[in-house]
Amino acid sequence: MLQMNKPMQAGIGKSALLLVLANSHELEEADTRVKESGFSFCLGKTGSMDLQKVVSAIETAAKRNELVNETLYREMHALYHAILEALEGVTRGQIMLGDVMRTVGLRFSIVRGRPYENKAEGEWIAVALYGTIGAPIKGLEHETTGLGINHI
Amino acid sequence: MLQMNKPMQAGIGKSALLLVLANSHELEEADTRVKESGFSFCLGKTGSMDLQKVVSAIETAAKRNELVNETLYREMHALYHAILEALEGVTRGQIMLGDVMRTVGLRFSIVRGRPYENKAEGEWIAVALYGTIGAPIKGLEHETTGLGINHI
Amino acid sequence: MLQMNKPMQAGIGKSALLLVLANSHELEEADTRVKESGFSFCLGKTGSMDLQKVVSAIETAAKRNELVNETLYREMHALYHAILEALEGVTRGQIMLGDVMRTVGLRFSIVRGRPYENKAEGEWIAVALYGTIGAPIKGLEHETTGLGINHI
Amino acid sequence: MLQMNKPMQAGIGKSALLLVLANSHELEEADTRVKESGFSFCLGKTGSMDLQKVVSAIETAAKRNELVNETLYREMHALYHAILEALEGVTRGQIMLGDVMRTVGLRFSIVRGRPYENKAEGEWIAVALYGTIGAPIKGLEHETTGLGINHI
Amino acid sequence: MLQMNKPMQAGIGKSALLLVLANSHELEEADTRVKESGFSFCLGKTGSMDLQKVVSAIETAAKRNELVNETLYREMHALYHAILEALEGVTRGQIMLGDVMRTVGLRFSIVRGRPYENKAEGEWIAVALYGTIGAPIKGLEHETTGLGINHI
Amino acid sequence: MLQMNKPMQAGIGKSALLLVLANSHELEEADTRVKESGFSFCLGKTGSMDLQKVVSAIETAAKRNELVNETLYREMHALYHAILEALEGVTRGQIMLGDVMRTVGLRFSIVRGRPYENKAEGEWIAVALYGTIGAPIKGLEHETTGLGINHI
Repeated sequence: MLQMNKPMQAGIGKSALLLVLANSHELEEADTRVKESGFSFCLGKTGSMDLQKVVSAIETAAKRNELVNETLYREMHALYHAILEALEGVTRGQIMLGDVMRTVGLRFSIVRGRPYENKAEGEWIAVALYGTIGAPIKGLEHETTGLGINHI
Repeated sequence: MLQMNKPMQAGIGKSALLLVLANSHELEEADTRVKESGFSFCLGKTGSMDLQKVVSAIETAAKRNELVNETLYREMHALYHAILEALEGVTRGQIMLGDVMRTVGLRFSIVRGRPYENKAEGEWIAVALYGTIGAPIKGLEHETTGLGINHI
Repeated sequence: MLQMNKPMQAGIGKSALLLVLANSHELEEADTRVKESGFSFCLGKTGSMDLQKVVSAIETAAKRNELVNETLYREMHALYHAILEALEGVTRGQIMLGDVMRTVGLRFSIVRGRPYENKAEGEWIAVALYGTIGAPIKGLEHETTGLGINHI
Repeated sequence: MLQMNKPMQAGIGKSALLLVLANSHELEEADTRVKESGFSFCLGKTGSMDLQKVVSAIETAAKRNELVNETLYREMHALYHAILEALEGVTRGQIMLGDVMRTVGLRFSIVRGRPYENKAEGEWIAVALYGTIGAPIKGLEHETTGLGINHI
Repeated sequence: MLQMNKPMQAGIGKSALLLVLANSHELEEADTRVKESGFSFCLGKTGSMDLQKVVSAIETAAKRNELVNETLYREMHALYHAILEALEGVTRGQIMLGDVMRTVGLRFSIVRGRPYENKAEGEWIAVALYGTIGAPIKGLEHETTGLGINHI
Repeated sequence: MLQMNKPMQAGIGKSALLLVLANSHELEEADTRVKESGFSFCLGKTGSMDLQKVVSAIETAAKRNELVNETLYREMHALYHAILEALEGVTRGQIMLGDVMRTVGLRFSIVRGRPYENKAEGEWIAVALYGTIGAPIKGLEHETTGLGINHI
């Protein structure tokens, strides 16, 4: 059975999820907690039927907030795969939105830091998504989430 | 852009995620909050290289805690697809564990209730998963999450 | 081994398939048979390289024929997943049409009713598709089918 | 819009579907109709939580009934891909059974012949599946179908 | 363990891969070798964020170089599935390019011939792809390959 | 259109592919070429109906040949995803072997080094696979390949 050991409770993925789930009045606490773990992060929103716009919005936020060095392919590559993995959770089966007549409204967080005690494990990046997915008609939607984690 | 409106902040999916992410000392607060929303829920743990055991553990917990009526196929069908969708988020691309040499240690929550203001929307079920995925060697793992939601 | 028991022979899925496979002179018989089972249904045609148009055509037919209540998300959600599952059968692997240079010409049926003897199982919905898939050149195509079933 | 032209109404895929959907008293009519189209075929049943057994049962039936020449890889290759495509329709998303705690009870038909007026199009093979998919508990199941077609 | 027997060393797939990997000064040697095996082939390049253009470029090259008879669906069907299978290798998981903000620059080869000693195995077709995949920004890319083989 | 520029011709992916495609008498030349690029590598063979054995054989070879540091999760994580991506190319659609009644006989190469001129891009790892896939009967098989590349 699973041991909920300390490293995981202070995990980069959990940090990303708590940030993206926080209400406005919970955000300060989440912010403090994540920074105490020594992680850098940013938060944003994106909504579209066009998957390309969702990927692009997250990449742009990561670059603008200097969570990745956009001139280094290895950093963009790490981020890109973390985004795609988070989108697998959001779309659950086929990474498609408008093509199958659905749209998303998502909050996203991007967290970068050293989640492992062993310093040689270096930096990792987590992308968390939370929001709604559904028909392009207000109210015909339910919640959805996704988390992608990669070494950077 | 996404409006974080009240219904979603009190959402069944967010409830399921907060339950599964809660530390032992946060659990009481999460518990209260979810019950105040009028939702029923249960929590459990499962860990395996065998996907069938993961599916089975969640189904068994749902039945034992009477979150679903196991004699009604429509309820089992709703639960089953919510589990599979949550596993898409956990496995991110191919719903496989041991076959591709990886194992999971997961906490799960199952939440049932009426997340929509319109009473005619009836009951829905959410399954949230959070834990680790990785090689079958302690420490060679990172966090993972998944959320599946279905009408019941 | 499989027992072809009565409930399945009068099944909602078989009804949907027989309707979509019927020639014009067989349609009356199929129509009678399905109505005798107490099911409601509609039939339609759609053809496109654009998957969104296919999904939309089926959803629109379901609403116009009052097989689903379009103001209830739970009904639209049930229908939507039945459509996607039927499209998995049609596309066999990747739910894509024009992006991989293929087009479909499909007949579809949507059937709603109570397929189980136990009344508590309530209503279910079936979407059946039958037609051709192939290159966007007349004749370079073969038949394809798909069936999606969901509780409603 | 789709033209339901004659070639498709006498199609190899429709033949395979009608055979697999036929009740015992409808089978004779279906049998006659398919033979009149000049097609060869066989029918069988298979049920398992083990996907390998399902594939194997269909392959064995095709060999025993001499619908394929088992010493020719090109024929076995054509059959194999037709089976896999039919299973995509049955499993709708992930070709898995027991691993995700579900089982199937299926009737299958295998049809071989010349479905195109142009003789140079040669022979094609169709595999149709129809039956139930669900939890490994009697009654917790719904109908499912799939059709795979390949040139041979 | 795998025996690297002669038939495979002179294989249609290996031929397709060596052609697509050859530098300009290696091409003559590869060309000779493939022709000695009795295979016909063509080479081309394509680059796009639009998957449809990639599929179309390969199909057009195959027709223009008379590697397939474009009036025969069985030949176009064989080619089409070989292309899709090669694209699975290139995209590794979801056959998508621009929708997930990535682009490809690919060389392709199409090889047709008799790769098996048994003449009854007839003709087969191989499609090999090699090039880069990555962000739509020069340099943010890595190599990718794919191979699809089908009987024709 | 694609420019076949120098960096790609000396690429880590091409190196991995040429190693895995080399006959015994070509291996020395490929070996020299790859070492001149400053890459480390190893070669191996694996054959199974069991995907887990294939993954395991490649991981074990990488560890024994010290291409990855098995005590560092970031290195094992990079290798693991490169293996899975290569297997997508080999299996083309569903990462499954025995479950869908097929087996592989594969040669594999693992190459590690600095493929980019910009030293800050650091090390990358490539896994190439080449061999046969088919029915578990000798001769009923065709060639298959796959390539996975990741930053390390």
